[in-house]
Amino acid sequence: MFDKEYDVIVVGAGHAGAEAAAAAANLGSKTLLITMNLQTIGQMSCNPAMGGIAKGQIVREIDALGGYSGIITDKSAIQFKMLNKSKGPAMWSPRAQSDRMRFAEEWRIALENTPNVDFYQEMVSGLLVEGTKIVGVKTSLGLEIKSKSVVLTNGTFLNGLIHIGNKQFGGGRAGEKASTGITEQLLSFGFDSGRMKTGTPPRVDGRSLDYSAMIPQPGDINPDKFSYLDTKALTTQRDCHMSHTSALVHDLLREGFDRSPMFNGRIKSLGPRYCPSIEDKINRFADKDSHQLFVEPEGWNTVEVYVNGFSTSLPEDIQFKALRSVKGFEKVKFFRPGYAIEYDYFPPTQLKHTLETKLIDNLYFAGQINGTTGYEEAASQGLMAGINAHLKINEKDPFILQRDEAYIGVLVDDLITKGTEEPYRMFTSRAEYRTLLRQDNADLRLTPMSYKIGLASKERLVRMEQKERESDSFVQFFRETSFVPDDINPILDQLDSSLVKQPDKMFKVFSRPKVTMDHMKELEPVSNYINENKLGREVLEQTEIQVKYAGYIAKEKNNADKLQRLENIKIPDNFDYSKLKSLSFEAREKLKSIKPVSISQASRISGVSPSDISVLLVYMGR
Amino acid sequence: MFDKEYDVIVVGAGHAGAEAAAAAANLGSKTLLITMNLQTIGQMSCNPAMGGIAKGQIVREIDALGGYSGIITDKSAIQFKMLNKSKGPAMWSPRAQSDRMRFAEEWRIALENTPNVDFYQEMVSGLLVEGTKIVGVKTSLGLEIKSKSVVLTNGTFLNGLIHIGNKQFGGGRAGEKASTGITEQLLSFGFDSGRMKTGTPPRVDGRSLDYSAMIPQPGDINPDKFSYLDTKALTTQRDCHMSHTSALVHDLLREGFDRSPMFNGRIKSLGPRYCPSIEDKINRFADKDSHQLFVEPEGWNTVEVYVNGFSTSLPEDIQFKALRSVKGFEKVKFFRPGYAIEYDYFPPTQLKHTLETKLIDNLYFAGQINGTTGYEEAASQGLMAGINAHLKINEKDPFILQRDEAYIGVLVDDLITKGTEEPYRMFTSRAEYRTLLRQDNADLRLTPMSYKIGLASKERLVRMEQKERESDSFVQFFRETSFVPDDINPILDQLDSSLVKQPDKMFKVFSRPKVTMDHMKELEPVSNYINENKLGREVLEQTEIQVKYAGYIAKEKNNADKLQRLENIKIPDNFDYSKLKSLSFEAREKLKSIKPVSISQASRISGVSPSDISVLLVYMGR
Repeated sequence: MFDKEYDVIVVGAGHAGAEAAAAAANLGSKTLLITMNLQTIGQMSCNPAMGGIAKGQIVREIDALGGYSGIITDKSAIQFKMLNKSKGPAMWSPRAQSDRMRFAEEWRIALENTPNVDFYQEMVSGLLVEGTKIVGVKTSLGLEIKSKSVVLTNGTFLNGLIHIGNKQFGGGRAGEKASTGITEQLLSFGFDSGRMKTGTPPRVDGRSLDYSAMIPQPGDINPDKFSYLDTKALTTQRDCHMSHTSALVHDLLREGFDRSPMFNGRIKSLGPRYCPSIEDKINRFADKDSHQLFVEPEGWNTVEVYVNGFSTSLPEDIQFKALRSVKGFEKVKFFRPGYAIEYDYFPPTQLKHTLETKLIDNLYFAGQINGTTGYEEAASQGLMAGINAHLKINEKDPFILQRDEAYIGVLVDDLITKGTEEPYRMFTSRAEYRTLLRQDNADLRLTPMSYKIGLASKERLVRMEQKERESDSFVQFFRETSFVPDDINPILDQLDSSLVKQPDKMFKVFSRPKVTMDHMKELEPVSNYINENKLGREVLEQTEIQVKYAGYIAKEKNNADKLQRLENIKIPDNFDYSKLKSLSFEAREKLKSIKPVSISQASRISGVSPSDISVLLVYMGR
Repeated sequence: MFDKEYDVIVVGAGHAGAEAAAAAANLGSKTLLITMNLQTIGQMSCNPAMGGIAKGQIVREIDALGGYSGIITDKSAIQFKMLNKSKGPAMWSPRAQSDRMRFAEEWRIALENTPNVDFYQEMVSGLLVEGTKIVGVKTSLGLEIKSKSVVLTNGTFLNGLIHIGNKQFGGGRAGEKASTGITEQLLSFGFDSGRMKTGTPPRVDGRSLDYSAMIPQPGDINPDKFSYLDTKALTTQRDCHMSHTSALVHDLLREGFDRSPMFNGRIKSLGPRYCPSIEDKINRFADKDSHQLFVEPEGWNTVEVYVNGFSTSLPEDIQFKALRSVKGFEKVKFFRPGYAIEYDYFPPTQLKHTLETKLIDNLYFAGQINGTTGYEEAASQGLMAGINAHLKINEKDPFILQRDEAYIGVLVDDLITKGTEEPYRMFTSRAEYRTLLRQDNADLRLTPMSYKIGLASKERLVRMEQKERESDSFVQFFRETSFVPDDINPILDQLDSSLVKQPDKMFKVFSRPKVTMDHMKELEPVSNYINENKLGREVLEQTEIQVKYAGYIAKEKNNADKLQRLENIKIPDNFDYSKLKSLSFEAREKLKSIKPVSISQASRISGVSPSDISVLLVYMGR
């Protein structure tokens, strides 16, 4: 029924699956995207937003690598904000609200316009394995589809169980069936699995809200966008709104605690720590009698509204009564209640850096199946799995991003080295080199690498090279050009910055904390340079960061280079740790199980101490 | 959890449910639309098209009454055709291909913008009944929602069972859960239920088709549209394409007959006779070795394609092999196979003319639950049920359309009088007065009635009155204005129509079969009249029909009036047929069960003979 054999089959078409299919296909693999419902491709299951702190950086990285998430978000965005703009540029994090229906539609159109992607609608209920190698999938109707590799991106569907109060029923999302069969088969192959939990808030009728009682949360005045390509920035935007819970709301919620599956033991698995349910927040922060709620519109036209911050699996009557006591929600009408969902995941220490499983060759996992939470985390894993699935069957070197190259590198390395027992979410604090891993330079960091493996387009590379050339030259201009004290002093005076007496290089004064590109632009030589070279917003921003944070960046690069040396000390694939008697028992067990590829990775395994690393270094002859 | 009590709860949000909710709400009822999935409101489950022969007339009637289907179709259309344009105007039937995603989105937007419509996502698993009166519904989570009336529009979801070859599994549509609980409860109330079957063809990848081997089926050159309001006609359209099955294709399909649930007895229920599966066609018309297939695009942007004419529940490998032997389909790739679905319906003789059930007060059924097939049939029932649910709880007269007033009148009267044992589809042949029930005059027939009950808007009435006034005056112009023989004879000569010698009224020559409005426009007085009065396309068309078919129309009106006299002889609600000994046994049984409201309706019941009618007439003193 299918053309002989596919190169790559991607199971699931959420953020991870969609990126995996696009990447593999764009690299040239004959790819089949198989999903239980072709009408829910690129579905945002939870909040209608992409990006945010650390997550926005990941979306930029996906875009820089030639993934689609940034483009899709730009095309479907209804609001854009650069978060943390008051902090240093390492913290700047783009975030967009999307039109939920448009987002899914744009994904579908993008995939349909990707040559090499075929589509099929059915539940995959099993894997075809020969020896220790994947050779295809089996559908619930019994169809066998052959492929050289398979990427599993099952989201919350594997034995999904939905909870609302005392009620529970099978399902992958509200109104959608769970997926069965895959977990059971993987266990029989020797995989470990666990359960995780996540939740979602009620969806409500925007017509029933009193927005005048809430605080508007508009988008940026001059909004940026995600993609480094020439997608359009928004010219009109929709506001979000903020409200707050209160002691009364908390009391009302507590009335349902005895029927809470979170508290009465029915849900045993762990949920995302930094995206807790409202009942969790009340419980953990008993002294706080107010939490923020963000009212997010679901699209340009719809009245449906997402109540961010009110995720809950309390009984629906409790959800309702409590939400009605929130300011502005006095007359709220529900479209559907919030709920929790439990699903199977596979501890990601069972994976290699390519996201290929250690047990089954050419089988890859991406997204929530690896214990992560978040669209961006899922999408980036899908992208990496899709790339590596393609590279491996073409006998090419794997594509692995290092921790100092990308948040995606941090994410994958954390997962496979440390594993996770609760849904893993990215934070800037997880990255040692976050001054290097900024949202403004993901193209500079990653596009050349991706172009080399054949994924990022020539257009993307050319744009990136132009940006790099122009900003490097502009930095050079600041290094070489001197200012006239009489020109700069009025500006410094205004900024309460000490005045200068001698002419000096512009770079020096631009490095001062309070001085920005906007101030520098007031100097005629600078504005002339900008006009003559027709420099755009991106180049000005890049130049400013390169000048102002030159010291930090250089220092971090130096640290990263040092660590790179440890990264370069490889540990052979089947290294026998039992012969190193001086390793601690715990370290030996962990090293045997994780099989780190380098001394550096070994050092990041919890339970492996510096003295264990010394033992290894001595053995390796260093 | 809900605002005290709703006036009307509509269960299901397909064509029937969406129209029911819109109608009840627009009349002023507080309405709740409850569906298993808010993202599938207005979903076209089968082919992406509205209208067609007799069905197009129904869509015009829905529009004339103030329903939404015509407007939604116009907004989402990708192609428009007036079918049967070569036949008399009673046969003209509008039909449009729609963008499937746009259609659903436009429905959702329209409903969200209808005040009084609330939304809720959950499965309704039971009805709340007090005595013999409905008082609300119960959801699968145990929520009880109160209402004065309930409209059930469950489509194919009630105990839906999907078949593909030897495999069968529960589901309401591919990828969606079946609905359980309602049938069982209705049976316990004393309702009869049955099973019906329908099917759908494979969806395929348009990129895998060779359109050059097929015959293009473009839309009309100057396309009309559905709504009488000022929706926009299409300026660009997408082509459909035609191909054919062959003896080889049929042979390949026959290879799967032993695994066909249609033929091996697994499916016992009847499917739509005039929308048969391909295996049915091969079986029933064994001498035909070719059937038409229409390749219909699913939207403006998508590559997904609907293979109209290839509905099937044969095993997917057989579907695939056979379709690959169709011209242009040699390399076809499937998005999903065709399948059959069995579902519960309730013989519609259990309903009154208002679509209210006889057993439970204020409970209404609309759509496939009544044994009909087709979006248009469903939508019109939904509209009528929504209207009547509202009218009854407001103690107003029911809104019933007669057989000479609307196809919708024919549909409802057929259903409740004759019942149906196979999916009921509308045809022009079902209407005795089809010369009256044209697509061009649904507004003239129905808008004033709907305006009177408060549904059709003032704008709609004003537009209709202007059209009526202008076309009446124009007809009058033709009656009163004489032609000059020298002006008209060149035209008649061209048409091979006998020349005229004396001046006469224009009406007379315009009545000749070959003479059209386009010919009449060549006469200066006519073109002057049109220009002076700024007459639009609709008025010209209406005038032409009124002139050319005046005789037929008058005759049919006369017949209808005669029958109306029988319609006016009402039979009391609890008439005791057992006291009429001279009724045949069969007639007595049928009359007792159907409880006709008039002698006319009684005469349409199968098994009630003219002599039984005489007995009734004698008893009624006529």
